Amino acid sequence: MNDNPVMTINNYQASLAEGRAAPLDWWHSCAAQIERCEPEVKAWEALALEAPELDAELADKPLFGVPVGIKDIIETVDFPTGWGTDGYLQTSSSLVDASLVTLLRNQGALVMGKTVSTELAYFTPGKTCNPLDTSRTPGGSSSGSAAAVAAGMVPLAFGTQTAGSIIRPASYCGVFGFKPTFDTLSVAGVKSFASSLDTLGWFAGNIEDICTTFSALTRAPHIMAQDDLAGVRVGVHSLPGSLPLEDDVVQALAKAQMQLKKAGAELVPLPLDERYEALIDHQKVVMAYEASQALASEYSRLSDHMSHKLVELIEEGKEVSYLQYRDAMHAAASLRQALTAVFDAQVDVILAASATGEAPEGLESTGDSIYCRAWTLLGVPCLNLPLSAGKAGMPVGVQLIADRWQDQRLLEIASTLMAKERGVV
Amino acid sequence: MNDNPVMTINNYQASLAEGRAAPLDWWHSCAAQIERCEPEVKAWEALALEAPELDAELADKPLFGVPVGIKDIIETVDFPTGWGTDGYLQTSSSLVDASLVTLLRNQGALVMGKTVSTELAYFTPGKTCNPLDTSRTPGGSSSGSAAAVAAGMVPLAFGTQTAGSIIRPASYCGVFGFKPTFDTLSVAGVKSFASSLDTLGWFAGNIEDICTTFSALTRAPHIMAQDDLAGVRVGVHSLPGSLPLEDDVVQALAKAQMQLKKAGAELVPLPLDERYEALIDHQKVVMAYEASQALASEYSRLSDHMSHKLVELIEEGKEVSYLQYRDAMHAAASLRQALTAVFDAQVDVILAASATGEAPEGLESTGDSIYCRAWTLLGVPCLNLPLSAGKAGMPVGVQLIADRWQDQRLLEIASTLMAKERGVV
Repeated sequence: MNDNPVMTINNYQASLAEGRAAPLDWWHSCAAQIERCEPEVKAWEALALEAPELDAELADKPLFGVPVGIKDIIETVDFPTGWGTDGYLQTSSSLVDASLVTLLRNQGALVMGKTVSTELAYFTPGKTCNPLDTSRTPGGSSSGSAAAVAAGMVPLAFGTQTAGSIIRPASYCGVFGFKPTFDTLSVAGVKSFASSLDTLGWFAGNIEDICTTFSALTRAPHIMAQDDLAGVRVGVHSLPGSLPLEDDVVQALAKAQMQLKKAGAELVPLPLDERYEALIDHQKVVMAYEASQALASEYSRLSDHMSHKLVELIEEGKEVSYLQYRDAMHAAASLRQALTAVFDAQVDVILAASATGEAPEGLESTGDSIYCRAWTLLGVPCLNLPLSAGKAGMPVGVQLIADRWQDQRLLEIASTLMAKERGVV
Repeated sequence: MNDNPVMTINNYQASLAEGRAAPLDWWHSCAAQIERCEPEVKAWEALALEAPELDAELADKPLFGVPVGIKDIIETVDFPTGWGTDGYLQTSSSLVDASLVTLLRNQGALVMGKTVSTELAYFTPGKTCNPLDTSRTPGGSSSGSAAAVAAGMVPLAFGTQTAGSIIRPASYCGVFGFKPTFDTLSVAGVKSFASSLDTLGWFAGNIEDICTTFSALTRAPHIMAQDDLAGVRVGVHSLPGSLPLEDDVVQALAKAQMQLKKAGAELVPLPLDERYEALIDHQKVVMAYEASQALASEYSRLSDHMSHKLVELIEEGKEVSYLQYRDAMHAAASLRQALTAVFDAQVDVILAASATGEAPEGLESTGDSIYCRAWTLLGVPCLNLPLSAGKAGMPVGVQLIADRWQDQRLLEIASTLMAKERGVV
């Protein structure tokens, strides 16, 4: 796993400040790594082949000189955007960058290129392989971003989650993946799929970079690991027997519980089953209905080019009635309140499965997002921790989840856990 | 006012079905009216000058042959999109239509052209005049859409509301304006300004067309006026003395109360003052913060071309901290719950001011959105009813507001009220 980082963003900034590194060093080493790995991993749709010009005025910014990957459903002025469509929908260059891209550039980050997305960020895979075993999927829809970070091609890459498109690939590729509270980052310039679900997030090889990026993009205070997790209550919810769950995941959850306990946290059993299963269904209704609207024009003009899976979802969404959609949205709002009451009274964070098991073999599917759907609909912040490996030696992650807008607390708890694991604290 | 329609969408469909009208009749009569009024009103950025080709397969759709106007921050494949920027940002033609435009075309509507928006849908006015008095503002940001409907140039036009951009111009121009529950229509292809506030809605000259359009776009059941408003409880909330309110509005609210009572409704006093004022401030924080993110790229590249007002808002938003934003979003979520409790226990709809008075003189300002901000942040459906006139003879509207997802009930109550007013029921 990548929980023992060679280099963090903060270390790099310190090296620059002390003159031990040059501002394009990281860019050059990433470019070299891309040259080595990309032919096999295929994480990129478009790449900057020449070193970028640096803006010296940004030298004191927290992401100065940090190469980043941007999922190919996010618009950029200097790269084409293919929306994961293999060219049937393609924007050669956008008038303006997506909001996120501007925020990143303003913080000194260097856009290395556009990473592979599944088709319009739904389930039909792109060309990317899992860098830990190229016969396996990296997960999706943010396939290229997860794989690029896992292969060390960039320290930081951005994706979106509408069902399980950040947490699942992070789990499969053994990296940290963070989906902040819904509405934390503007989705201006991001292809809309389901507007009440689409959430921008990012991948990194270590928790510190996840936290640095959060503070850089939101200007929230710097997040520090605490001495231990004393006083932290972690909700452990048993999963409904009806849902698929491999032994590898049961063991990863057990291991995480042990690690949390060892770090001082208190484990609190949380019976969430029935409501949890209802949320999964509501998420499907909301996603299908909203996607059928958001992609109405693409469907009208280009459905002949679309994959069968995507056409099926849009047509399913066209059959969802306004009343069904309204009821699912209403139920989601009620359950958000109910969950807030659980967080207020009982727990600080919840521990949950990130995926159903190790990355599946083959590239024809990006795996199952079932353990992410409910949390995405609730809009809560979710963080994949790459803490375990499964029978085949592939990573198996777990998620920590907090209430909406408790992102800082969640990241602080995760930082403390990782510091204890590394023996730093 | 336009509460005595000559022609409704349903009447037109009946005429077509009975062979008393041809499918392009309405288009031609609108084109003729545009030719007469447009030189003075200036409601359009782009117009279709030739009659469109009709798709006979859509002949049984509810909006077949209905000419519509589309606000110029909404993308279309067959018109340029200027985003209200007077050309400093311009998309010559989009790859795909905005979701809304596809939904409209699929229901048989004919896009007549793009209507004038304020700059990026904020406060800096475009060229449009109020058709009832061209020395006055039509309101904004959906200036052209409100004016085009008021001048009879199209029966139906679409806009967006982030603060008060539908309800206020509807009030100033004396037309019906409807902002449905947040998330009812996908904003894919609409310029993002503040993603947790931006809401698509529409203007029409009569309540029936507002309802027909709602059912056509959502596939919700047809909305029927009831015999009377017996059993309907209307919340009447006194306005804080600190907020501006002209006698014209006090009188319009008193008249609406009388009309509602005459139709059988029960009036229920609702003391909302303090929370209402807090919401106005939260809306400003959320809008500024989100706009500074959503328009980050435009600001970086084009701030020299931007109006002073827009630059000011973006720079204000850059000073809003993540914690302030988080707290405003959190407060809004709590107040949504509190309002739902009020609706559940006490009232079916709330009656409120649409604007501070008649349309102000001059075109340099689009007026004050203060009476819309709180409701927009709450995401509730709002409907402007053009029921009164002020001292200068200009329209003064009032809003009816329901809880989220109670759009059908709201429209049913308004339909009943208007039918009673016309003596139809």
